[in-house]
Amino acid sequence: MSAIAHFTRRWTFVAAHRLHVDALSAEENAATFGKCNNPFGHGHNYVVQVTVSGPIDPVTGMVTNLSDLDAFARRELLDRFDHQNLNTLECFRDTVTTTENLCRELWRIFIAYPHAKLERVRVEETGNNAFDYFGEGRAARFGE
Amino acid sequence: MSAIAHFTRRWTFVAAHRLHVDALSAEENAATFGKCNNPFGHGHNYVVQVTVSGPIDPVTGMVTNLSDLDAFARRELLDRFDHQNLNTLECFRDTVTTTENLCRELWRIFIAYPHAKLERVRVEETGNNAFDYFGEGRAARFGE
Amino acid sequence: MSAIAHFTRRWTFVAAHRLHVDALSAEENAATFGKCNNPFGHGHNYVVQVTVSGPIDPVTGMVTNLSDLDAFARRELLDRFDHQNLNTLECFRDTVTTTENLCRELWRIFIAYPHAKLERVRVEETGNNAFDYFGEGRAARFGE
Amino acid sequence: MSAIAHFTRRWTFVAAHRLHVDALSAEENAATFGKCNNPFGHGHNYVVQVTVSGPIDPVTGMVTNLSDLDAFARRELLDRFDHQNLNTLECFRDTVTTTENLCRELWRIFIAYPHAKLERVRVEETGNNAFDYFGEGRAARFGE
Amino acid sequence: MSAIAHFTRRWTFVAAHRLHVDALSAEENAATFGKCNNPFGHGHNYVVQVTVSGPIDPVTGMVTNLSDLDAFARRELLDRFDHQNLNTLECFRDTVTTTENLCRELWRIFIAYPHAKLERVRVEETGNNAFDYFGEGRAARFGE
Amino acid sequence: MSAIAHFTRRWTFVAAHRLHVDALSAEENAATFGKCNNPFGHGHNYVVQVTVSGPIDPVTGMVTNLSDLDAFARRELLDRFDHQNLNTLECFRDTVTTTENLCRELWRIFIAYPHAKLERVRVEETGNNAFDYFGEGRAARFGE
Repeated sequence: MSAIAHFTRRWTFVAAHRLHVDALSAEENAATFGKCNNPFGHGHNYVVQVTVSGPIDPVTGMVTNLSDLDAFARRELLDRFDHQNLNTLECFRDTVTTTENLCRELWRIFIAYPHAKLERVRVEETGNNAFDYFGEGRAARFGE
Repeated sequence: MSAIAHFTRRWTFVAAHRLHVDALSAEENAATFGKCNNPFGHGHNYVVQVTVSGPIDPVTGMVTNLSDLDAFARRELLDRFDHQNLNTLECFRDTVTTTENLCRELWRIFIAYPHAKLERVRVEETGNNAFDYFGEGRAARFGE
Repeated sequence: MSAIAHFTRRWTFVAAHRLHVDALSAEENAATFGKCNNPFGHGHNYVVQVTVSGPIDPVTGMVTNLSDLDAFARRELLDRFDHQNLNTLECFRDTVTTTENLCRELWRIFIAYPHAKLERVRVEETGNNAFDYFGEGRAARFGE
Repeated sequence: MSAIAHFTRRWTFVAAHRLHVDALSAEENAATFGKCNNPFGHGHNYVVQVTVSGPIDPVTGMVTNLSDLDAFARRELLDRFDHQNLNTLECFRDTVTTTENLCRELWRIFIAYPHAKLERVRVEETGNNAFDYFGEGRAARFGE
Repeated sequence: MSAIAHFTRRWTFVAAHRLHVDALSAEENAATFGKCNNPFGHGHNYVVQVTVSGPIDPVTGMVTNLSDLDAFARRELLDRFDHQNLNTLECFRDTVTTTENLCRELWRIFIAYPHAKLERVRVEETGNNAFDYFGEGRAARFGE
Repeated sequence: MSAIAHFTRRWTFVAAHRLHVDALSAEENAATFGKCNNPFGHGHNYVVQVTVSGPIDPVTGMVTNLSDLDAFARRELLDRFDHQNLNTLECFRDTVTTTENLCRELWRIFIAYPHAKLERVRVEETGNNAFDYFGEGRAARFGE
């Protein structure tokens, strides 16, 4: 039987955003998003945790090489999102920049990592708020 | 396919408690609960994490509105448990105030939150101790 | 229906290690393990989290007695791994001391804990790196 | 002899900002501020720690009443800075929104707290960056 | 010139307490202490940090031996305060159990540590509240 | 009057070490250093915090440019200490690798940073142990 391990790596980026939906009125935006609808934006230190799984390689003892995953995240995550205003990014042209949608976008990015299976994307917006995403059409199976 | 996200919110409350079972003798209580059986009680900064899930709303980009969940927690969790002695609460009249039972009680409370599906209740008693509860008759499915 | 809770306990130990595979050449070791292949070793403050589950005892309100689990961990984990060089331990004679393999070894240890069901072993190597193991032939079921 | 204690309170607010000096050229701004000069801004979860001191009241056992300090911070700090873009605030009309200048501005605010002596303002911009300010013309006396 | 280093050691204990002054009326107690005046008490995970200083021993490279300081804290701090109700302790017979007074009491205890000079006692009551004490008649010299 | 701010930057490195003094007997080494004297070494995730001070530049709003300080730390701290065994470094040829001595060595390194005044070097060996150093012949002035 193979031994499967899960590897969770943590990166941080800082960004501005504003919660606003063009299709809603000013009143609806204010009622829905409250202070997060402030027209000049606010921002966060976003903490991203990506979990990948795979068999432990019998020679190297690894699920995936940390340097491969870090290089991927440097190119696809940090270079594109760090020190940005999320509302100006192409990927948020048609969706509001909630952390739920950010998780979904990061799933689309990390699913392309070729060396292990993507299991989970987690984003902590603040120390009191975290969001998990497990892929399109998938929910967590915490219990049953 | 719908996109399901999981939202975990964190609140803190402070409380006293004492581990003691009336049906057990003083010796049995001391043997079972050790220092936690001290008759004058001790206490904790309890950290509660509640995870709810649901489809990401295509307009608002949210699983549930944070202000709704916070209002619910203010009324049902913080106003009832913060700065209390757990042993004096009605919900612990017949059960010992372990964190396992506290989780179970919090599950009964948050299952009534109407805007998303309750997935998990976690309580950290100290930085080295955490308890998860997934509902009556449900266990985690971490592996298989 | 029984009420199942999950209890996660956290311990820390400090240890040295070196990532090196005798069957690989010096060049292959350097290419695979980078700085972690430094012949004199480096080290970590390892954070171990063990999750066990079980029915909440209707009398004691516990899944397992913390003092039992701590005594087990003291004897089987801390006394054997704390302030050691992992590469000198018998259990790593034939495998490289990656955190994936450390998790697997800790699973073999904690599966013998007699008072609750082992669900998960997690080891944080640094604040940015964590590994989970769920048993031989088992993977997480985060989604589906 | 009186007994002096120091009380440090911690609040968090989230905000956007952009580092940019009008008097500098685009090239100079880019060279000085790097990614922080991005025209659309970025943001942070700012952590503020304010330290006040005073004699321990012989009756109440307090340096200052926490509810007084929290009310002051609610009105003067959180209501003015939380979920804002710092660059749009009046107090930053003539100065760049570095955390150094933010500390200085918070000093000007908290020095007006009437119930204890302000000793220090600390702002953590990220988990790896913190700034302390001790008042105009004052430096820390860590050693000598 | 001698080389002086400062060593800060951190311990945690859990305790219950109630803020109440017998000399004040029920109304005054409620107005002064708010929820902390709840007659059944509440509690905390108290985090204690003690800083001692001294010359770095030229042979051992230490300010003081950690095992000496830990043994002292075990006997004088943890065995006396952990899992207690602070209001029942002799040392709080005549003073209210605020964290300011707790710091002062811990100063009286650690000033007797014979192997290094006591510089500071810090107690974190919650993650958002910390108190420092520097000895009778001494205030911090953060600035000047 | 000039406005002086203090900037604290945090970096992490991982290393092995062993506490051992050649001039002491095996028994003395064991008695002095306990488990830390294990001949194969152990290790830590060392957290370094360096505090520098200086006037806030009236144009840039900074005490020193973070990119300058990070480049200095990359070259002088991380490239020399990360993933090393401290006992093999030239700077510890004649002194034992306690964290006190590590602080002192880091002071000698960061005092050469040309763009701000070094105030403090802090090293956290574990989450429960931290050491501060303020320069040769200097002690903290926490009180008086």
